[in-house]
Formats: sequence, C-alpha cells, structure tokens
Amino acid sequence: MPGDSLAAPVSTYTFDHLPLRHGGWFGPVTLAYETWGTLNAAGDNAILIVHALTGSSHAHDAERPDDPKAAWWNPLIGPGCPFDTSRYFVICSNVLGGCYGSTGPSSLDPSSGRPYGMRFPVITIRDMVNAQRVLIEHLGVRQLAMVAGGSIGGQQALEWAVTYPELVRNVIVVAATAALTAQAVAFSEVGRQAIMADPHWQGGDYPPGQGPSAGLAIARMLAMITYQSEEAMELRFARRPARNTTIAPPAGAGDLGGRFDVEGYLYYQGESLVRRFDANSYLYISRAMDLYDVSEGYPSMEAALRRLRGKALFIGIRSDFLFPAARVRWLADRVRSLGGDATYVELDSPHGHDAFLKEWKQMTDALKFVEQ
Amino acid sequence: MPGDSLAAPVSTYTFDHLPLRHGGWFGPVTLAYETWGTLNAAGDNAILIVHALTGSSHAHDAERPDDPKAAWWNPLIGPGCPFDTSRYFVICSNVLGGCYGSTGPSSLDPSSGRPYGMRFPVITIRDMVNAQRVLIEHLGVRQLAMVAGGSIGGQQALEWAVTYPELVRNVIVVAATAALTAQAVAFSEVGRQAIMADPHWQGGDYPPGQGPSAGLAIARMLAMITYQSEEAMELRFARRPARNTTIAPPAGAGDLGGRFDVEGYLYYQGESLVRRFDANSYLYISRAMDLYDVSEGYPSMEAALRRLRGKALFIGIRSDFLFPAARVRWLADRVRSLGGDATYVELDSPHGHDAFLKEWKQMTDALKFVEQ
Repeated sequence: MPGDSLAAPVSTYTFDHLPLRHGGWFGPVTLAYETWGTLNAAGDNAILIVHALTGSSHAHDAERPDDPKAAWWNPLIGPGCPFDTSRYFVICSNVLGGCYGSTGPSSLDPSSGRPYGMRFPVITIRDMVNAQRVLIEHLGVRQLAMVAGGSIGGQQALEWAVTYPELVRNVIVVAATAALTAQAVAFSEVGRQAIMADPHWQGGDYPPGQGPSAGLAIARMLAMITYQSEEAMELRFARRPARNTTIAPPAGAGDLGGRFDVEGYLYYQGESLVRRFDANSYLYISRAMDLYDVSEGYPSMEAALRRLRGKALFIGIRSDFLFPAARVRWLADRVRSLGGDATYVELDSPHGHDAFLKEWKQMTDALKFVEQ
Repeated sequence: MPGDSLAAPVSTYTFDHLPLRHGGWFGPVTLAYETWGTLNAAGDNAILIVHALTGSSHAHDAERPDDPKAAWWNPLIGPGCPFDTSRYFVICSNVLGGCYGSTGPSSLDPSSGRPYGMRFPVITIRDMVNAQRVLIEHLGVRQLAMVAGGSIGGQQALEWAVTYPELVRNVIVVAATAALTAQAVAFSEVGRQAIMADPHWQGGDYPPGQGPSAGLAIARMLAMITYQSEEAMELRFARRPARNTTIAPPAGAGDLGGRFDVEGYLYYQGESLVRRFDANSYLYISRAMDLYDVSEGYPSMEAALRRLRGKALFIGIRSDFLFPAARVRWLADRVRSLGGDATYVELDSPHGHDAFLKEWKQMTDALKFVEQ
C-alpha cells in the first residue's frame, strides 16, 4: 500500500447510525471512498472492490494507471482492464474500523471528543458490508454488477453475496474461505498480543503518533510470514545475510550472531506499517477476520451458501497457507453442489496469500471467468 | 517437559574452558546430565540423547517409566525399549546455554558475580556438541553407539556425526534438516523480538523471576503454532470457543469478541513456559538453531555430508512445516548418493513438528532401522 494513498482525491460519506451484528448500533459512521468510471441511469453497472486488512480505498490510481505500486489493484482496474472503468462504475471504500478516512478506533468519539480507542465496538464482516451498503445506496447504485476482494476483502465479498443476493450479480472471492482455520486465528492472536503487550498501547489510549510501534511492527512481521510461503521466502531470501543492516528491529536491541536477509526484510515491513497504520484498527479488523463464519445466523453452512443467486468466482492460491487453496476450492464445490453457479480457479504461484496482489497476469486470466 | 524434571537426580560436570566455533573460548562450563544403564568396559555402548529447544536432561524417568509425561522421551528409553537401558548406557545432558542446570545466560558470571545475561557468548550447535564431547569423555565413553535427537537435538545429532564421525556408530536425526529455511528463521526472529521488546527484558539484565514474561509467553505461543500443523489444530480446536477463560493472556487485556479454544490453549502454553524457562536461554538457543548450517566450515554441503561414517537414520514428519519432511528426506538421499548408509523414515502424523514427542508407536517402529 503506498504511503501517499490519501493524496488521491478521497470522498467521504457520513451517516448517523449503523445497526451492529452483535447488537446495538453505532454512529455516526464516515466511509472514505473513491470511484472510477460512471454510474449508468439504471444504477446497475457498479463494481464494489473491497480491500485487505491494512488497505485503503486507493485500489486504482487514475493518474498513474501504469504503475502497479501506485494503487493496490491498479493493474486490474481501468479502461479495458478486468474491472473496466470505461463500462463500469468502480467503487472502493475504506473499511469500517479502518484508519484511511473511515470511522475507526482512531476517530474522535463525538461524545467525548477523544479517540474511541478500545471503546470502539467489536465489528464484524457483516457490519463492514452493511456500512458499504449504505454508501452504495447513497451513490445511487441499485444493483452491483460485481463485488470483488481478496483476504478479508474476499470475506466481505462472500458476505455480500450471501446477505444481499438480490443486489449482487457476480461475486469474486479471492484467497478467502468460509471461516478462518484455528491456525490462522492463532497467528492473528499472537500479533494482537504483541500489540497489546507493548506498554505504549496503554489499553488503547495512546496519543496519536505515540502508539505501540514495537508491538505493531512485530505483529506485521509475523503477518508478513503468513502472507508469503516457505517456497517464496526460499526463492527470495534463503539464508543470505542482510544486505541492509541499518534498519532497527522493533525491540531496538543488537543482532545476535549476525542478521539474515529475511530478518532485515521483516524489520523493514514492520517499520513501514507502523508509519502508515493504526494499532487499534489492526486489532479490530484482524479480529473481524477471525470472527467471520459465513454460516453464522443460518441453520447451517449449506443454508447460508444456498442463498447465493448470481455467479460466483472463487480464486485460491496454491501456496497460500493462511487461506488454503483446498478450502477455497471446497467452498466453490459446495456452492455448486447446492445448485449455485460457482467457478474455481487456482493461481499457480509460489507467493502465498499475497499472490492476489502480485500475480497480475494470472489474476487477469482468472477474472475472465466472470461475465463482462 | 514436566515442571518437576529437576526433582530427578541430576549430576553435573564442570570443566574450565570450551573453545567456541566463532572464536575465543568460554568457561567455566557446567553441564547437567542424567544417565541410565551401565557403561561397558570397552566404553562403547553409550547412547547420547539430545533434547529440543526448551528441554532438559530428563529424557527418561526410571521411577515412573510407564508415564509418558514423566520425561520427554520416556516411552523410548528403558529396558527393552528402542534406547535399551539394559544393554546401553544412555546419557542426556542439558544443552550449553540452557537453564536446567547447565551453564547458560542465567548462570552467574564468576568474574562479576552477576548473571551473564547478554554477555553470554553467541553459541552454535557445534559448541553444544563440543561441550557434550567433553562430558562423555569425562564419563569414560570411547565411542557412541548412537546419538539421537529431534529438532535442535537432531541438528546436534547430525553435527556429531559430521564433526566426529569416528565417535558415532549410529546417528538418528529426527525432524531436523541441514539448515533452517528462511521461513523458520523468520518465525524464530519474531519470537525473539517479542521477548526483547518486553520492557522487563531490560537488555537481558532482569532479576531472576522478574523477566520478560509477556514477551516470552508470546514467543512460546508463536512457537507452539509452528510445532503443530493446520491439520492438528483443526482436529483439536477448530473454531470452538474456549472452555477455560480464566487464564490471562500475555498482554493481560480483555478478550475482543470472545475467546477461541485455540487462544486459551496458547495462553496456557505461554504461561507454562514462563514458569519454567529463562528468556535469555530462549534467545541464545533459538539463535543457535537459526545459525546452524551443516556445511559451515566445509568447502560444500557434500564435503560435510561425505564425512558421515556410521549408519544414519533420518526421520521426517509428514505435517512438519518448520522442518519440512521433504528437506529431511533430501538430506537422507544426499548422504546415500554420496555413498553413506542412510535410511529415511517418515512419520505419518498430523501432529506437525511435535510428532516426535507424541507418536510413540511410529517412533519405536522407525528406530528399528538402527542396528541394535
């Protein structure tokens, strides 16, 4: 995610209250969003793009369309791209709970004038979807031609198709499953404990810019391992010594018997996230991923999946160990066995979970399975 | 590892100095050890058992031979067992750098009267082996019938066979490889950063009993994930809510939207290690694992592996993602292709890396490949 993502023109929409999945309501809610292309008169040519854990609304950069690093799905969005802005009205909003312009734990609680911190409510994937629904209605969208996202964005896309089947003609679920495995929840919780064990966290009430930077960096280091794969890390780092030893590790202590390249890389990744992301947002959004189970609120998983009406494309990644390909495929098979129109495509990539942010050619090919 | 492992009769041997792999020497060195069975007159019926990262010399409990939890390889050691104490003299010592009676960072530096802390030298697998060598010579051993260990114990067993081939008739390397992958080093480093970021660590100079308990617990939580497998965690925990919610998580903060069973389990594992293990020992020993590369000091990997003279048994674990079975098998194949006498056996277990401490029947069967 580019650090300057908020330099792009980001719009906001604020509404008074959002009913929450776990009871009660929350508000006011502001969503930051960007759009590309034009909504048609029928209001039915919109594509909703949903970002990953630490992402923002900046999925596409119209000023720098040829720079893959200028926006997180830049090569997939634009005129003539899989998400074709010459035909579709493409929307991406920062998620509820985020820190890129939407209401999250770092936002000021109007009742106290202080950041919410841990007084922010526990939010779910359903809540994120419901907030997006208010936004698209505000924008005049009557039906979504597509909802697409990877990772927690894929969870939201799936939830959209299950909760509001009449509003979703095509759903594209990338590197996401019906629910996280115990192992994925476990990794997620280790990261959160690292954040909360940092004394600078202060129960979530840290002053802006003085948060738990060591804890957040450690959480990010761990997450980056789970977003890649043994194979990718061997290809990239193997056991080479660090080329750059100037980056301070989160704890600030000296190296113990040298520094491996993979360690220097992880320090860099940790430091980068600290500069651009809020620790409490990390806690809330990662927890929403853990808590997600598509079957929640339905008599069974089947009852939930049977609700899908449109076309569903599931994209798994061969080397993904956070959302194993076999579990993505299982979901597609299950939908199809229940009479749904589901396709499964697997990215043959060594890059692990992150492949959906790297394998542009394969992603483009996979997206051809959705009716354009 | 049972918390009461030091209640067993543990002997110690102290020697003045140990030359270190990375230069210089260190001393005095005390090794804590236990033995079972009797050394023969020729001094050639000894078996050296080498423990894993947080283990101790208590591999066998002669008082409670039928309790698998009384000692870490209890079912494999004893009269009539694969490591047969009626025929062999079985030795297990706490590793150099450890905290179960051997000299480690928590030992008092005689020159200052204070614990070494981070003034303890960086130690390697070779240093651990060399310390063991001094011990076995003290015990009158002239040749080892077997050296056996898993994980970092497997690294030491391999190093024994490569460094002192004339002293090792059989080597048994379990769930260990020629060198850690970048991914394994990365996981290891995240754990160390969690320890060192804990303000109670104080650069390693914490008073006894007042160490970085949150950091060490977080490191252990992460390590426990890597010792298991996605498959084992699904079987054991899936997405069940925690049965026991009384254990405080490392950071001490409240749960965010409930607690999963796997989280409660990891809190328990973290807390258990904190009660029994020294954080600085964890740093040094885990680092020795990272630094190990069997080819170090030789012109090539082949040159190192060609040194093996005796029989080598390599045991991999199907579901091990820290020391992937394919890499253990590769090592066995490489030794054999170089003319060595190597056998590979794979444990068909869902339990991941930890299977060598659980799959007693399969371990017993595998050990039959070693000449008794």
